[in-house]
Amino acid sequence: MDKLVEQGSRRLKWAYEHMPVIQELDRRYREEQPLAGLKIGMALHTEAKTGMLAVTLANAGAKICLASCNPLSTDDSVAAALRNEYGLDVHAKKYETQEEYYNNLNAVLNISPDYVIDDGADLITMAHTKRRDALKNIKGGNEETTTGVIRLKAMAAQGKLEFPVMDINDAKMKYLFDNRYGTGQSAFDGWMNATNLVVAGKHLVVGGYGWCGKGVAMRAKGMGAIVTVTEVDPVKAIEARMDGFEVKPMAEAVKTADIVMTVTGCKDIITEKVLANMKDGCVMGNVGHFDNEINKKDLDAMTVSKEKARDFVDRYTLKDGRKLYLIAEGRLMNLAAGQGHPAEVMDTSFASQAMGIVYMVNNHERMSCQVYRVPDEIDNEIATIKLRSLGIEIDSLTPEQYDYIHSWQEGT
Amino acid sequence: MDKLVEQGSRRLKWAYEHMPVIQELDRRYREEQPLAGLKIGMALHTEAKTGMLAVTLANAGAKICLASCNPLSTDDSVAAALRNEYGLDVHAKKYETQEEYYNNLNAVLNISPDYVIDDGADLITMAHTKRRDALKNIKGGNEETTTGVIRLKAMAAQGKLEFPVMDINDAKMKYLFDNRYGTGQSAFDGWMNATNLVVAGKHLVVGGYGWCGKGVAMRAKGMGAIVTVTEVDPVKAIEARMDGFEVKPMAEAVKTADIVMTVTGCKDIITEKVLANMKDGCVMGNVGHFDNEINKKDLDAMTVSKEKARDFVDRYTLKDGRKLYLIAEGRLMNLAAGQGHPAEVMDTSFASQAMGIVYMVNNHERMSCQVYRVPDEIDNEIATIKLRSLGIEIDSLTPEQYDYIHSWQEGT
Amino acid sequence: MDKLVEQGSRRLKWAYEHMPVIQELDRRYREEQPLAGLKIGMALHTEAKTGMLAVTLANAGAKICLASCNPLSTDDSVAAALRNEYGLDVHAKKYETQEEYYNNLNAVLNISPDYVIDDGADLITMAHTKRRDALKNIKGGNEETTTGVIRLKAMAAQGKLEFPVMDINDAKMKYLFDNRYGTGQSAFDGWMNATNLVVAGKHLVVGGYGWCGKGVAMRAKGMGAIVTVTEVDPVKAIEARMDGFEVKPMAEAVKTADIVMTVTGCKDIITEKVLANMKDGCVMGNVGHFDNEINKKDLDAMTVSKEKARDFVDRYTLKDGRKLYLIAEGRLMNLAAGQGHPAEVMDTSFASQAMGIVYMVNNHERMSCQVYRVPDEIDNEIATIKLRSLGIEIDSLTPEQYDYIHSWQEGT
Amino acid sequence: MDKLVEQGSRRLKWAYEHMPVIQELDRRYREEQPLAGLKIGMALHTEAKTGMLAVTLANAGAKICLASCNPLSTDDSVAAALRNEYGLDVHAKKYETQEEYYNNLNAVLNISPDYVIDDGADLITMAHTKRRDALKNIKGGNEETTTGVIRLKAMAAQGKLEFPVMDINDAKMKYLFDNRYGTGQSAFDGWMNATNLVVAGKHLVVGGYGWCGKGVAMRAKGMGAIVTVTEVDPVKAIEARMDGFEVKPMAEAVKTADIVMTVTGCKDIITEKVLANMKDGCVMGNVGHFDNEINKKDLDAMTVSKEKARDFVDRYTLKDGRKLYLIAEGRLMNLAAGQGHPAEVMDTSFASQAMGIVYMVNNHERMSCQVYRVPDEIDNEIATIKLRSLGIEIDSLTPEQYDYIHSWQEGT
Repeated sequence: MDKLVEQGSRRLKWAYEHMPVIQELDRRYREEQPLAGLKIGMALHTEAKTGMLAVTLANAGAKICLASCNPLSTDDSVAAALRNEYGLDVHAKKYETQEEYYNNLNAVLNISPDYVIDDGADLITMAHTKRRDALKNIKGGNEETTTGVIRLKAMAAQGKLEFPVMDINDAKMKYLFDNRYGTGQSAFDGWMNATNLVVAGKHLVVGGYGWCGKGVAMRAKGMGAIVTVTEVDPVKAIEARMDGFEVKPMAEAVKTADIVMTVTGCKDIITEKVLANMKDGCVMGNVGHFDNEINKKDLDAMTVSKEKARDFVDRYTLKDGRKLYLIAEGRLMNLAAGQGHPAEVMDTSFASQAMGIVYMVNNHERMSCQVYRVPDEIDNEIATIKLRSLGIEIDSLTPEQYDYIHSWQEGT
Repeated sequence: MDKLVEQGSRRLKWAYEHMPVIQELDRRYREEQPLAGLKIGMALHTEAKTGMLAVTLANAGAKICLASCNPLSTDDSVAAALRNEYGLDVHAKKYETQEEYYNNLNAVLNISPDYVIDDGADLITMAHTKRRDALKNIKGGNEETTTGVIRLKAMAAQGKLEFPVMDINDAKMKYLFDNRYGTGQSAFDGWMNATNLVVAGKHLVVGGYGWCGKGVAMRAKGMGAIVTVTEVDPVKAIEARMDGFEVKPMAEAVKTADIVMTVTGCKDIITEKVLANMKDGCVMGNVGHFDNEINKKDLDAMTVSKEKARDFVDRYTLKDGRKLYLIAEGRLMNLAAGQGHPAEVMDTSFASQAMGIVYMVNNHERMSCQVYRVPDEIDNEIATIKLRSLGIEIDSLTPEQYDYIHSWQEGT
Repeated sequence: MDKLVEQGSRRLKWAYEHMPVIQELDRRYREEQPLAGLKIGMALHTEAKTGMLAVTLANAGAKICLASCNPLSTDDSVAAALRNEYGLDVHAKKYETQEEYYNNLNAVLNISPDYVIDDGADLITMAHTKRRDALKNIKGGNEETTTGVIRLKAMAAQGKLEFPVMDINDAKMKYLFDNRYGTGQSAFDGWMNATNLVVAGKHLVVGGYGWCGKGVAMRAKGMGAIVTVTEVDPVKAIEARMDGFEVKPMAEAVKTADIVMTVTGCKDIITEKVLANMKDGCVMGNVGHFDNEINKKDLDAMTVSKEKARDFVDRYTLKDGRKLYLIAEGRLMNLAAGQGHPAEVMDTSFASQAMGIVYMVNNHERMSCQVYRVPDEIDNEIATIKLRSLGIEIDSLTPEQYDYIHSWQEGT
Repeated sequence: MDKLVEQGSRRLKWAYEHMPVIQELDRRYREEQPLAGLKIGMALHTEAKTGMLAVTLANAGAKICLASCNPLSTDDSVAAALRNEYGLDVHAKKYETQEEYYNNLNAVLNISPDYVIDDGADLITMAHTKRRDALKNIKGGNEETTTGVIRLKAMAAQGKLEFPVMDINDAKMKYLFDNRYGTGQSAFDGWMNATNLVVAGKHLVVGGYGWCGKGVAMRAKGMGAIVTVTEVDPVKAIEARMDGFEVKPMAEAVKTADIVMTVTGCKDIITEKVLANMKDGCVMGNVGHFDNEINKKDLDAMTVSKEKARDFVDRYTLKDGRKLYLIAEGRLMNLAAGQGHPAEVMDTSFASQAMGIVYMVNNHERMSCQVYRVPDEIDNEIATIKLRSLGIEIDSLTPEQYDYIHSWQEGT
């Protein structure tokens, strides 16, 4: 067996071993074949965990075509193994050019999918704009991430969304786990792999205190950093403060920052104005979906020389003599410089994807062109399977307790 | 000045000094008089922070009548000062009998209030049952706590709720802070005052992983306990586990428990079946609203002798020789054995109350007999005032950023 | 039974229930009578845990005379119970004047003790100066706290110490537990009782990063504070930083401080220069042994009016209009405003005292006038009893492992 | 420039940029030439930080010969760059056989060093046994790690040590930082790189609660694990429990373990008896110096098949069907599967090495064949330089304060 395929196979097997909910759904769907005869186009980070989602959907009866949702996030060994060992149609490689990236998304739409699974909404956007030929066959889709959901809700609000979409990102079994514990850990996987620098005792600035930012801040504290949070939402700002973090505007926070991680889902978090204040020696990385949180044009304009400092770190020497460091060109550092989220958290995210797409297949005719929350029943079923896989028992309400919390007459 | 009044005045002044949002609303409402000519009936824990809410509403033009929402939670010095220094109509004392408790609620309804502010929904329930005479003048109300909201939603679902109610409990500036940081800290205020026992190295079981339970578990960990969580909701159960806590059924968890705190809002969390397994020497306390989380009948039935072990702790010697300890007779230990939530967290809770009741006064005619969420604008305004009082500046979205996160065309 | 005696008896019983090592030593010493016929003079904080140490030593055969080592730290109910229920000779009350304080220490020396147990070294100092009449019969002593050990080592270094002293403070089973987990928790017992203010989100400055300061900083973080540490030792300063705390000079740190706690064992930590910079509204408390860490003369000199803000808090209004708050007049806030260390941590401290004094009785003839470390065997025995009481088993070295870590020939 | 050399040069430059104390010593020693004319033989992990220590010593005038102290811990690119760019004599490569490993140590001794710097004491042991020819010229040495110090103290106790050795491991600026924050972080660098599995919610067992074990346990907790500690020392066992960890015998702890990390410095921590109880799916790794903490012979004897599961993980399928996983063949997982300690913590460790060897050169004639603590002055100087590099100011004692804590007359 080819070395690359062998490595990819190992990684897929390893992931599968640590995804007990996917294992159970795989067993169930192999038998039930809920996706028999359907074509599913996917644009996700092509690595081991996603690979096992694709395999599970294929085992459930679907024809799969898979591209990556980010030019840097493909694991070539996994792509090779999916093609060679599992017979999937995969269009993805690490370090895609912009052109290759869009060619691959086009390849996915070329199969004329019945359903699409997207991460960041590039694929769905293309289907609604340049590839309206593909649009007419699409009955529904899933969206994985905050950024994509924001875009799709904007489309729906403007009446531009032409099929229903399941908002997987806001499934409880996704965002409560993937965004916090997944991003929280993988950001530091990327950090340690890229820099081999200590976190303890460092001033670390987290841009954004959404669920992902909360995860990064929590783990930064857990590793000994002194954390400052930046926010635009006053409620989240107070929450960050009450969680024991300093809260400041970004342009203020960077004055003493050793490390800055952007996790906002917005653009232009680190701009010329911010860079002007940044402490000499600061290392920046992005954990948000797109590579526009740190404005590289602004950084380039202030730079006199740029060189590779480590495999995933560039050293920018500015006109004023300061040296700043950027991880993975400002792309998702947990995927570009690390190995992405751990299998166990992707297990429940991708179980939400799998159950979400099956739900969509069964219900799309009753749904309108909106973004839908995953029903609580799906969250509860996934959680229940996960608990069982961990050997954890929990209490259940007695009928008297159930009545009590659904009644109002009993008081002091 | 009377000693008791003097002490109460000091406590009210102290609380007010640490409630900057209430201070700002007080200044604003004194001028605007939004509650001029209205009668407001209140049933809350009669202590210093609540006192300052009542004073603020009085300063805003309302006639106030105040009772306690729990027979053990009154601070007599504060009650005295509210009567003597601030001229409020207060019907509350510490250690009320069941009869006194209901007499006091009746006194509140006797003023025929225009609006009611409740905590636990006993007052509103009375107005809908035995005191329907008072019901007809009530135009709306606020409810403070999880337990009360559950009851009122049950009433609304059954079509039994006869005026609109603001769900203050689920205002972001309430539950995110009061329930977590307030309950989290005050539970241990009660603990330390009642027991003077160490938390570090103890097996501490938290019953319930809602926002209050999360706060208690977080602080227990922060004080060095080894924490186990019990839940009936599988999603919350996984969340607790991922937060680094053991998750078990209660009857299992108590086998090694040194400390048990119930924080569920449900009843019968500690019953005969659980007590049968409980470790010798275990100390139990309740942080949920009502005193039925720990079933005292079950405990009494297993007991051969009971004696006072400390001012707020009873020692139960069971038939099998085990000794179990119960704090504050199973009533809210943070209020009965401690001083309740810190002023700073009640600041934003009671700002939500004050702004909520003003909102209700201005909008009740457009509202139906339902339980209403506090509008985001109120949360944001409270958060903004709070940030200002802390001297914290935050970022704001540029127009380009605003467009970006409300658009969908820009992608990879 | 007298109410006060009854309360004190309850507290002593409660403490004893939670001191399993003292229980075991008590059983052992009742039988062995290692202190038969000896007079022991004690100056410790007269509260429940100390009370049980005194009772244990009495049960071991000694005649006990007990005073308090701090004018504010006596629990009158415990003093009453020790006198009335246990027949001990106790000279202590809460709120002693300076004169009463020294009278009580003199009373202890009046019994002409064979051994002394001291906390802060005031008693031992008196015996070496004004009460040299008592000195001649003293064969040895124990010292409980950092401050006292510093004083006694200074005496020994100058050749002024005239009997051997066991340094109980530096016994592992004392300082690793009492200083960290005891002080860490009880500082916040005092804080919550005195202020009822939140810790989360507050800027809290800890003066000193010795074992006590580490404990306070650790718990402050665990309760959600943003912690800054001040130090004079560069190694401890770096350690604090690596533990995730800001490190600053005190005069800088107080500019943004909401709470300051001094835990240095040195004097003049908060002086005029520091107070000049202190943030309006800051609350100060001391957790160090003496009340000279916060210089009250300096504070008084800057003050225009002073009033009681709460039972244990004074409000100082300065000439420049700022209001500063001082807890318990700058005395040990965990004892003066709280209930002192939990029984479980005092268990091992006082087991070190009990075993230390028995060791001294058995070995004093072979000892010189120095300050002695408690032998490792005592630490290990106390730890082993404690583990047993907790039901914890641990591994032990196999003979092969023992040889391995005591040999040098086996390598890579 | 050769690719490998280029990569190594980048890594050395990167490390140097993050080692401000080494930078300052390098500047100082280039001028002072304290090692002029001396030959220094080194056996350390040959990677970037060590490389910069070697370069600094070379710049200080010494002739350097460097081998690795572990067959798996060499960074080939750094070795290449040290040879080609810095002209050092380096005998090390990744994946050395046992024979190559000892050949390289022999090469170091072949230069007949004046001083040796060792990590694990293999080099010093060889000089005392098979290579006594080299012994006669060695005037002194440094030892880096716990394991080595244990061996050397055993030698000294038996009168077998024939030159003085500085115990660098127990320098405060080494063990307080390197062992805790370095090992704590790098263990999880190795973990994430080897497994890409989540830590949060996992049962993680830490074998040993010395300074390294404390670091690993602290970070495990900081990443969300539920941690159990095993110990043979009763005092450390209680300490672990008070820090919020379960404490159990290893054979008990592994029954529910998802992850086991051994950090004891002893051998045979995971043996047949332990493996027999281990939970199916458990992943084991070692963070102690030698690869004998997990007994691979015992593991092999229970295994029916073994295969590569990931690049640094082997899957063992046992006779009873359980699958167990071993990271990096049981060798130091933070170096074999990760990148070793961060540069900033090695900065102070290697500053202790550099100042320690200069101290030895200046003082060896006054020293006997013992293991020596690094003088406090060196610790304080390193800490002071480090603070300065971080821009941190601290307080200093006034003369009055100095007198106060060195006197004994001032009391209550």
